[in-house]
Amino acid sequence: MSVAVPLSLSLPPSTETVAIALDERGYDILIGPGLLDAPASWQGLPKAAAALIVTNETVAPLYLDRVRAQLAAHYGRVDKVLLPDGEQHKDWNSLNAIVDRLLATASDRKTVLVALGGGVIGDMTGFAAAIYMRGVPFVQVPTTLLAQVDSSVGGKTAINHPLGKNMLGAFYQPARVIADLDTLDTLPPRELAAGLAEIIKYGPIADADFLAWIEANLDALLARDKAALAHAVKRSCEIKAWVVGQDEREQGLRAILNFGHTFGHAIETGLGYGEWLHGEAVGCGMVMASDLSVRLGLMPADFLPRMRRLIERAGLPVVGPRLGVERYLELMRVDKKSEGGEIRFVLIEGLGKAGMRGAPDALVAQVLDAHTA
Amino acid sequence: MSVAVPLSLSLPPSTETVAIALDERGYDILIGPGLLDAPASWQGLPKAAAALIVTNETVAPLYLDRVRAQLAAHYGRVDKVLLPDGEQHKDWNSLNAIVDRLLATASDRKTVLVALGGGVIGDMTGFAAAIYMRGVPFVQVPTTLLAQVDSSVGGKTAINHPLGKNMLGAFYQPARVIADLDTLDTLPPRELAAGLAEIIKYGPIADADFLAWIEANLDALLARDKAALAHAVKRSCEIKAWVVGQDEREQGLRAILNFGHTFGHAIETGLGYGEWLHGEAVGCGMVMASDLSVRLGLMPADFLPRMRRLIERAGLPVVGPRLGVERYLELMRVDKKSEGGEIRFVLIEGLGKAGMRGAPDALVAQVLDAHTA
Repeated sequence: MSVAVPLSLSLPPSTETVAIALDERGYDILIGPGLLDAPASWQGLPKAAAALIVTNETVAPLYLDRVRAQLAAHYGRVDKVLLPDGEQHKDWNSLNAIVDRLLATASDRKTVLVALGGGVIGDMTGFAAAIYMRGVPFVQVPTTLLAQVDSSVGGKTAINHPLGKNMLGAFYQPARVIADLDTLDTLPPRELAAGLAEIIKYGPIADADFLAWIEANLDALLARDKAALAHAVKRSCEIKAWVVGQDEREQGLRAILNFGHTFGHAIETGLGYGEWLHGEAVGCGMVMASDLSVRLGLMPADFLPRMRRLIERAGLPVVGPRLGVERYLELMRVDKKSEGGEIRFVLIEGLGKAGMRGAPDALVAQVLDAHTA
Repeated sequence: MSVAVPLSLSLPPSTETVAIALDERGYDILIGPGLLDAPASWQGLPKAAAALIVTNETVAPLYLDRVRAQLAAHYGRVDKVLLPDGEQHKDWNSLNAIVDRLLATASDRKTVLVALGGGVIGDMTGFAAAIYMRGVPFVQVPTTLLAQVDSSVGGKTAINHPLGKNMLGAFYQPARVIADLDTLDTLPPRELAAGLAEIIKYGPIADADFLAWIEANLDALLARDKAALAHAVKRSCEIKAWVVGQDEREQGLRAILNFGHTFGHAIETGLGYGEWLHGEAVGCGMVMASDLSVRLGLMPADFLPRMRRLIERAGLPVVGPRLGVERYLELMRVDKKSEGGEIRFVLIEGLGKAGMRGAPDALVAQVLDAHTA
């Protein structure tokens, strides 16, 4: 689907734009304050008779009416689906609620879906858009920092299955991403920190200068300074777009985006979903993966305290739960990225450079001993 | 996913091959007798630890063991899922049975799905492959004539929803299609005729010479002559591939593949699914659409009796059920291809050339009067 996006001059002047180039499916990420209420944010989207906003009970009271008002200028009918809030609702029932609504309103194959919320809403709405009549357009309006940096690029959509996270899904690209930084003003501090974890990640895996920039600007980010947030979100999206552009279907390079995630997923699963936020588990997982990089001789010893200090300053946990080494290893062996039972870690091989490697169990055990309590 | 397909010289000498070129997702369709038991048919498929055969209760006793034996030479584990037979089971429950089996066996993202059966099995298996872990490879082994000519090309996968046929799905390409003509020996005569309907279709929409060839060879096709079947399946796949290659995502040209389908879908829905086979409804629908082409002055008068005679000889119905003109119009207005309530017909504009057009209700009524009883 080719979507022309004539960006109007009337966007707020502070708006940053990241153009994602993907053959015929390219799109723009708009980043900045004041975007929800700027008519220009909504111009040039795919034409259709109707749009359907998908959001949740937490986000709807804050932003639904404003988004609906903007869409009403472009679509004859604007419907909504209100889903319950939370990762535990990222399932077939919620997906079905979206599909049922589309069919009940006799929505045709041009209907535009609008995901208004965090990563869960974005993942589910994107998957519904991917499979309804084999594909309708969708727009991402991420309202959490994590969703703005992580779900905006890469086209991963999914729902969970009782037997596994993100087990059903599709690679499917949005027609546009509208990341209004003002929506972060209402974000709880834990969720802000969880978003910062994914931003911090991009430094060690791809950009040493960006790591230094984050260290110098972390206080501004924590104070929700709009200019600092705009740069952090933009640079994260650019790096992710560069990585994904070389490996859209996750055959190889893209795996480096999972720095900290192998340990992190084990923490999430081991504690039960919902105990720690995903970003919190990734933060702690990055400490462990940094230590493993040092113990394998890939990085000098001062890399570990540098990463731990930054992650701690961001308000993220740096000590994992004491699940036991055997349990950690078991959880990491069923990771989606493991192959034939061998655990594969994303490790730092120089500031701004990452790779996938295995590691001796004994060394992993040392890491777990050092960073769990 | 790039799949190298080194076609061995040891394929049966009568094998026809159609190479489908789709950037990185190209694949081969093998057509001929004796393919199921030819080791060469199964060489060069994507490597994986395991394969999962999806089939149904009717097909399994005939071919499951033979396919399993061939796959066992390439995959360490070969599992199976047995689904109930029939279009009414092309739903979320069957899809879930496939996914549950994949998860229960801890299948990774390289696991190869093998669809062994007709169009229903192919559509569901393809959709499961499209969404399991955001995409695993799959192989089509179509065992009906309809599936060999229709599901082999185009990448359409789907399940039905209580509110509509094929409402949830994806465009997703197989790694290979193995169309063994020997499997047609066990096909009931009604199903053979239903497959012939889709073959006949390719003449008027794209290839006048092929229409003449079908007329000259229909008796051989009905007698299940392998050489005649091989040519008919091959030419149908080639034409479909040519059309789809120009319009993979069904934005325009691809709609001509629906010649006879607008009237046909109305017959299927009006009678209730399962009364007529899809191909039977399409056969009768082609008579109606041929007549409409003549009444609109697009084709000379002798085109209608020529088409009606051929469709009748194939053992297909040429007179539709008397649902009433208003009911027909109502059913055709909710067709997935209608836009803003206007019915769009695929009409013949010269032998081997088709286009999409609207038509006055009064003319459509004349057509329905002439061909229903």
